[in-house]
Amino acid sequence: MSIVQVDTPGGRYPIHVAPGRLDRLAESIPADATAIALVTNPTVAALYGERVEKALARSGKPVIRITLPDGEAHKDWQTLNLIFDGLLRNRCDRKSVLVALGGGVIGDMCGFAAASYMRGIRFLQVPTTLLAQVDSSVGGKTAINHPLGKNMIGAFHQPVAVEIDTDVLRTLPPREISAGLAEVVKYGLIIDAEFFDWCERNAAKMRALDPEAISHAIRRSCELKSQVVSQDERESGLRAILNFGHTFGHAIEAGLGYGQWLHGEAVGCGMVQAAELSVLTHGLPAESARRVRALVAAIGCPVQPPDLGVDRWIDLMQVDKKTEGGTLRFILLPEIGRACFEPAPLDALKQVLAGAASAAVG
Amino acid sequence: MSIVQVDTPGGRYPIHVAPGRLDRLAESIPADATAIALVTNPTVAALYGERVEKALARSGKPVIRITLPDGEAHKDWQTLNLIFDGLLRNRCDRKSVLVALGGGVIGDMCGFAAASYMRGIRFLQVPTTLLAQVDSSVGGKTAINHPLGKNMIGAFHQPVAVEIDTDVLRTLPPREISAGLAEVVKYGLIIDAEFFDWCERNAAKMRALDPEAISHAIRRSCELKSQVVSQDERESGLRAILNFGHTFGHAIEAGLGYGQWLHGEAVGCGMVQAAELSVLTHGLPAESARRVRALVAAIGCPVQPPDLGVDRWIDLMQVDKKTEGGTLRFILLPEIGRACFEPAPLDALKQVLAGAASAAVG
Repeated sequence: MSIVQVDTPGGRYPIHVAPGRLDRLAESIPADATAIALVTNPTVAALYGERVEKALARSGKPVIRITLPDGEAHKDWQTLNLIFDGLLRNRCDRKSVLVALGGGVIGDMCGFAAASYMRGIRFLQVPTTLLAQVDSSVGGKTAINHPLGKNMIGAFHQPVAVEIDTDVLRTLPPREISAGLAEVVKYGLIIDAEFFDWCERNAAKMRALDPEAISHAIRRSCELKSQVVSQDERESGLRAILNFGHTFGHAIEAGLGYGQWLHGEAVGCGMVQAAELSVLTHGLPAESARRVRALVAAIGCPVQPPDLGVDRWIDLMQVDKKTEGGTLRFILLPEIGRACFEPAPLDALKQVLAGAASAAVG
Repeated sequence: MSIVQVDTPGGRYPIHVAPGRLDRLAESIPADATAIALVTNPTVAALYGERVEKALARSGKPVIRITLPDGEAHKDWQTLNLIFDGLLRNRCDRKSVLVALGGGVIGDMCGFAAASYMRGIRFLQVPTTLLAQVDSSVGGKTAINHPLGKNMIGAFHQPVAVEIDTDVLRTLPPREISAGLAEVVKYGLIIDAEFFDWCERNAAKMRALDPEAISHAIRRSCELKSQVVSQDERESGLRAILNFGHTFGHAIEAGLGYGQWLHGEAVGCGMVQAAELSVLTHGLPAESARRVRALVAAIGCPVQPPDLGVDRWIDLMQVDKKTEGGTLRFILLPEIGRACFEPAPLDALKQVLAGAASAAVG
């Protein structure tokens, strides 16, 4: 088993990466917990619900199950409230522990429920998608969507542990593997050029879930994310670089309607656009931008953005949380392995967006 | 002007107590704020809306106003969402500052909105009721209600400052003054016997809003609350004593339906019940319990609890956040000026509740 340690002002906790972790979840339940609420969705419940309930019951605590409807479209208050309903109906108190078993949507909602139920209870992240394993389950960001913007309502709330069972990836559709790999590639791009090179050499192996390759990809991603989050839990500076490709990506998701593209797919495509913008504004070599495009394609993500129209693109991007006083700011790459967070000139941005539109038409 | 300093892990901030503070709010707006959103209700807006907007505009920042429906019955997600709608429609970013102008409901909702908008932005408390001035605006507790329990969903989120204008109390109905005085008396009971004596001597003056008496009552209450909160921001121990009378009080509010009794009235009555329970379980002299009852009556709060029936009382109290593993725990007084937080034997509790019922009938 690999253990990656996360250390933030909001909490210190381990990430365990190994096959078969689902059966050992009781090890991560705090001794003084009064009850466990397993939060999951019907798809994951059908695959792992009973097995995980049994594993949690080994802690000797009562276990209740709360099942939420599946998908980003349900990442809203109404669904969040199903968690509160379940907790209150079962009289769960401040020493109850939530367990998020699922992808990023379950993790984000369960995490925000834990952050705000009785002003904060503990929770455990058990991510079952590659995207959640390498990104959203680590670092304590939790949120729900608002009709006017993604992840607009949430909290920073660290889990007591993250349990990554690499076996569960076998039941994922290939599209979700590709979406998860976009975030893996991201870490190389923003912080570790050597890891980016490794990803280029191992793209096919990662997609095929070669055990050694995928374990290394997950562990290294968690390490890199943990390094960033440990230095800047609340995104006052450095942490923003983790959003590389996300300003474009969020606009794609909102513009097409959440759920059309997977989050990781939108981010993959957004990274290609952010690299193109970096060529215009930060002297990223054009050859590097081509490598980004080629690797995003190699992991199976779209590289051609949808034609939303330049004005709508800009409109959508302005709702992004990285906006400050109306100025659009982006994570940009002076070179592969190094990122900065700066405003971009509007004409350069329009050039990237127009290029996207003409390519989509042509 | 009196300044009381609050110092918690979640933030250090001043409480300013003085007449005319409403006109000087710009002094508390951080220099790097990008926009100000004034959150208030129609009643308060009619009295102070324009004046406060003008005072805030002196900071040189754009000011928007978000008006929420009035009353505890609206302290729910739907109303909270009006704040998010307003912020997003006006493209308020992470450096926006919320200003809560109103009573406890506005402060709690605006505070929770600030805690969760974009995972946390800054806010200023400008309490306009006595209850909010001496209690809810200090200490960073924020929350909304859930149909199954009061304040069940929220966060600890400290304001950047609390601005208490003692002039605004003149426009309050007498019933709200009485409700606020219940929390003032509470501080004496749990932590400062001398202040309790002072309250006994000055009950009439406080009710009449004698400037010197009410200023002293507010400042001393803020000091005592600040002391407790500075030692235990997240209510892992000591802070619980601030809930003296609240387990009974919350049951009254939930049992009668929120809004029937004012929160402070329910707490006032709850303190009488908690004192009676303390006589049975912690050797509080019966004479002290009589003093509690007499002072609660003298400040104009009800001392006779509603007859909810013993089973329903217990049922309602079990949803309280102080429950742990199903055991009912109470803040109890071994003597006036000293409180502890302990489970109470069910038979003693039933005796207090049955006494309440028979008195109500007789």
